[in-house]
Amino acid sequence: MTRVAILGTGLIGASIGLRLRQTLKDVEVVGYDRYPDVARVAERRGAIQRVFHTPEDAAKDADVVILAAPILAIRELLKDIAGVVSPDAVITDTGSTKVEVMRWAAELLPGHHGFVGGHPMAGKTEFGPAAADPALFEGARWVVLPPPTASEHAVATVTNLVESMGARLMFMDAEEHDAYTAAISHMPMMAAIALFSMERASEAWPELSALAAGGFRDMTRLSATDPSMAFDIAATNRGHIVHWLNRYIETLRELSRRVADEAGEEDLYRLIAATEWEYTSFRAGNVGRTENVSKAMSSMDGAGFGDFLAGGWVTDKLEALTRESEDRVRQREETERNRRTP
Amino acid sequence: MTRVAILGTGLIGASIGLRLRQTLKDVEVVGYDRYPDVARVAERRGAIQRVFHTPEDAAKDADVVILAAPILAIRELLKDIAGVVSPDAVITDTGSTKVEVMRWAAELLPGHHGFVGGHPMAGKTEFGPAAADPALFEGARWVVLPPPTASEHAVATVTNLVESMGARLMFMDAEEHDAYTAAISHMPMMAAIALFSMERASEAWPELSALAAGGFRDMTRLSATDPSMAFDIAATNRGHIVHWLNRYIETLRELSRRVADEAGEEDLYRLIAATEWEYTSFRAGNVGRTENVSKAMSSMDGAGFGDFLAGGWVTDKLEALTRESEDRVRQREETERNRRTP
Repeated sequence: MTRVAILGTGLIGASIGLRLRQTLKDVEVVGYDRYPDVARVAERRGAIQRVFHTPEDAAKDADVVILAAPILAIRELLKDIAGVVSPDAVITDTGSTKVEVMRWAAELLPGHHGFVGGHPMAGKTEFGPAAADPALFEGARWVVLPPPTASEHAVATVTNLVESMGARLMFMDAEEHDAYTAAISHMPMMAAIALFSMERASEAWPELSALAAGGFRDMTRLSATDPSMAFDIAATNRGHIVHWLNRYIETLRELSRRVADEAGEEDLYRLIAATEWEYTSFRAGNVGRTENVSKAMSSMDGAGFGDFLAGGWVTDKLEALTRESEDRVRQREETERNRRTP
Repeated sequence: MTRVAILGTGLIGASIGLRLRQTLKDVEVVGYDRYPDVARVAERRGAIQRVFHTPEDAAKDADVVILAAPILAIRELLKDIAGVVSPDAVITDTGSTKVEVMRWAAELLPGHHGFVGGHPMAGKTEFGPAAADPALFEGARWVVLPPPTASEHAVATVTNLVESMGARLMFMDAEEHDAYTAAISHMPMMAAIALFSMERASEAWPELSALAAGGFRDMTRLSATDPSMAFDIAATNRGHIVHWLNRYIETLRELSRRVADEAGEEDLYRLIAATEWEYTSFRAGNVGRTENVSKAMSSMDGAGFGDFLAGGWVTDKLEALTRESEDRVRQREETERNRRTP
């Protein structure tokens, strides 16, 4: 019988517990949460079989320890279990930033070869064990970060754990991980928070909220991230997040200039059409290194690229815009001529 | 038998057609689309019963004419039908910006009392008649804009049409409409386009796209708006969109400063927690003028506001942050003291 201890039984911890109990035999899943109510809900949902009241008690006799708490709480949990965890235990975590977590693990578990970092790239709007779902990680990427000190046994155990969740493994070092996730996850979350808080603070909010449709709700959905989790991400990945926020600000400034500039209509239309096309390709599953075909096509010139689209809408529109801008030039020239020949 | 002519049989036009045929008896729905294939798909889906090959032919004997095309195409359609439309016909549109459309209608249909503007606040990622859905407008807001010249009959007809779609009526003037929708719809769409195109252009895109989860896909979903529609919105509501883009840039800049500033952790946490709470309230249906209770509560001081949340998470976290920042101050003071007393 293998004992798995889940420390932190919120959405992620409880979803792992449900899936483990669904797919593995001979496993006993126990849990601890800082908030006893949260552990009790996880137990009632069947995500854990037994609740412990301290992290030490939960981790003491465990073969596998999973730290599924907000990042800054992971540091505390590492301190708590350091004195009691078995030298043969495998320890992993689910924190959304990794440089700090890997550093804490090395500092707080010196000489232990069982720690391997982890980050499941999945979530949903609701948090807490009531929202737990054994299929939460199905098809999602799960980044695994083995430090040089990790034993083969530890790496194999964490790899098996990830596969039993239905997730897709991805190996990365912590620096890479934090840089990439800042771009694709942490900065977008901050941008969602900025967008929602700005609109909410507007005097027109009663009207704006009444008019808000699915697009706005989707764009601001990451505002619903568990505040502790969101804050801890910001606090442990400041540099990369600020870098990407500033790049986003620059991109928006450039777009604002294009929208303001009537003379740049063709450029604006090209950008909108190319982005729509590439987004559709991304949603169709062209991700990772598989999107070379799409890349090759996106570098095609205007007309060819437009013709590629069904119906030739893009080409038609570009032709109309060209005609309109030629009309404007002609009108301006005519006005000019009339002014000169009174 | 009432004849309704839908000019533009894409997602919106075909969804209107499907719903009309589902809910009203004694109605004949005919259609025209600039792209004959698009009209044929709408006909095959049952959204229209008859295809006409020119807007004039479709509008000539119609009692109601619905212009469901990208905004700049609405101007062309108004020109096309001006000479043939019955003086008793009711004409409406579904364009996403309204100042220009209302101006064109006044200019191009002088003396006609049948025009009433409209804007259904609904959509989805896919476009074209294949994605049409008679329930698309169920529960959505539909802004109706009667110009002073509109007859009672025209206003009543458009009102009935909107109600038969299952949508909720909202009356507004065109200036108000364009200012509000720039904030809640057009600017967010531009921000989604900026976010996706920036990430797509990054050299790390193969890694970023592999790591992208639901949050990123949702935040960039508006990149999939029909390019003609997106461009026409930008071209006819430039001023308001640029205004809100610039406000968004300022908000992001302020957030970037807060993330960078370790000393401002409590402020950052308060912002994140308050935004999460207000977003949850918004998603729970507190919109429009009904959200006074939520407003009153959000102005409560830190501790009270935190206690209001189940589990006291916010209070706990704020206390921990306060303790940490007091520790930092103490350490700094101690260092200072040690420096002075050698």
